[in-house]
Amino acid sequence: MAIHYPNGKAYIPVTKTTKEKKKDYSFSNRGKTLEDEINDANEFYIAQDIAVIHKKPIPIQVVKVDYPSRSSAVIKEAYYRTPSTTDFNGVYKGKYIDFEAKETENRTAFPLKNVHLHQVEHMRKVSKQSGITFLLVRFSALERYFYLPFEQLSLFWDRMLTGGRKSIALSEMETSAIEITPKYAPRIDYIKIVNDLNV
Amino acid sequence: MAIHYPNGKAYIPVTKTTKEKKKDYSFSNRGKTLEDEINDANEFYIAQDIAVIHKKPIPIQVVKVDYPSRSSAVIKEAYYRTPSTTDFNGVYKGKYIDFEAKETENRTAFPLKNVHLHQVEHMRKVSKQSGITFLLVRFSALERYFYLPFEQLSLFWDRMLTGGRKSIALSEMETSAIEITPKYAPRIDYIKIVNDLNV
Repeated sequence: MAIHYPNGKAYIPVTKTTKEKKKDYSFSNRGKTLEDEINDANEFYIAQDIAVIHKKPIPIQVVKVDYPSRSSAVIKEAYYRTPSTTDFNGVYKGKYIDFEAKETENRTAFPLKNVHLHQVEHMRKVSKQSGITFLLVRFSALERYFYLPFEQLSLFWDRMLTGGRKSIALSEMETSAIEITPKYAPRIDYIKIVNDLNV
Repeated sequence: MAIHYPNGKAYIPVTKTTKEKKKDYSFSNRGKTLEDEINDANEFYIAQDIAVIHKKPIPIQVVKVDYPSRSSAVIKEAYYRTPSTTDFNGVYKGKYIDFEAKETENRTAFPLKNVHLHQVEHMRKVSKQSGITFLLVRFSALERYFYLPFEQLSLFWDRMLTGGRKSIALSEMETSAIEITPKYAPRIDYIKIVNDLNV
């Protein structure tokens, strides 16, 4: 049955296109990866002129390319390379922002094997250049999010290197990191923490 | 014939490995692309703790991946995507640096078709966020290099959009941009200009 407004106009139900779906800043993460959630936040920040932060493309070593026509190139053989830096970087109020996002299914600790040595090295260099650098951690099973400044990550990393535990306990995360409570628009508002801590 | 030093020690000619070649900060560009030259400068800046700036990977859309063994992945079909941002970004003294590098064989002008609309849009957003953003131009036939701040590029871009010329004359570049004179270590020392203009 067609539904009509009192003025006689037909009611057209709102159907979401894929594009609109992408801009759904809701409370639920709807099975999204942490990367998706950060991309959503970044899209929001750019649209609102709050910050300009992008995910870097995955580095790929191209070995063989075919040119079926003059204007198109098809890559026929290529390999994933190990990223030498972090996943995300950009600018907020003139300041350089650089971070890595990691999720774990673990309910009691964040295993440090999720972070690679070259990423820690990169963050150390950024930190030395007075860049703002941190780790965003999602405990997926708990739906809890933490912003761990590099200075703190560095302490846990060094503890591991000197024979200590190879993970950060959830209880340690609660005291060393800043918890991000999911909200609306954007769901994971990490720039708020950047602002509170640095600006 | 083997050559010997007076002390009897054999003379071993220095052979450059590919790795050593990369660290050759000489006056000559030896047929290098502008991108190679900037990568050389970036390597120098990182080694000397001056700045942390990297080229972003080229964005590639992966369509098909084979897994011949558990640990390896071979990309069998993929396509180049249009970059939505600039080529290089990073941090210098806490500040966000973001730029595009372009070379032209033209001897009298830099054709603006070398720069893409989405790159100008991105630079505009970065500039609005108080990031330091610019265009590095090489006139390859003349071996001359220019650092054109985004504010200046923007004027030439808008002139084109309003029906004016579609290029920046070399004479205009000489007055609107800062010329970089190649020197030793690093050859193209663009961070010096960043520092002079912004810090």
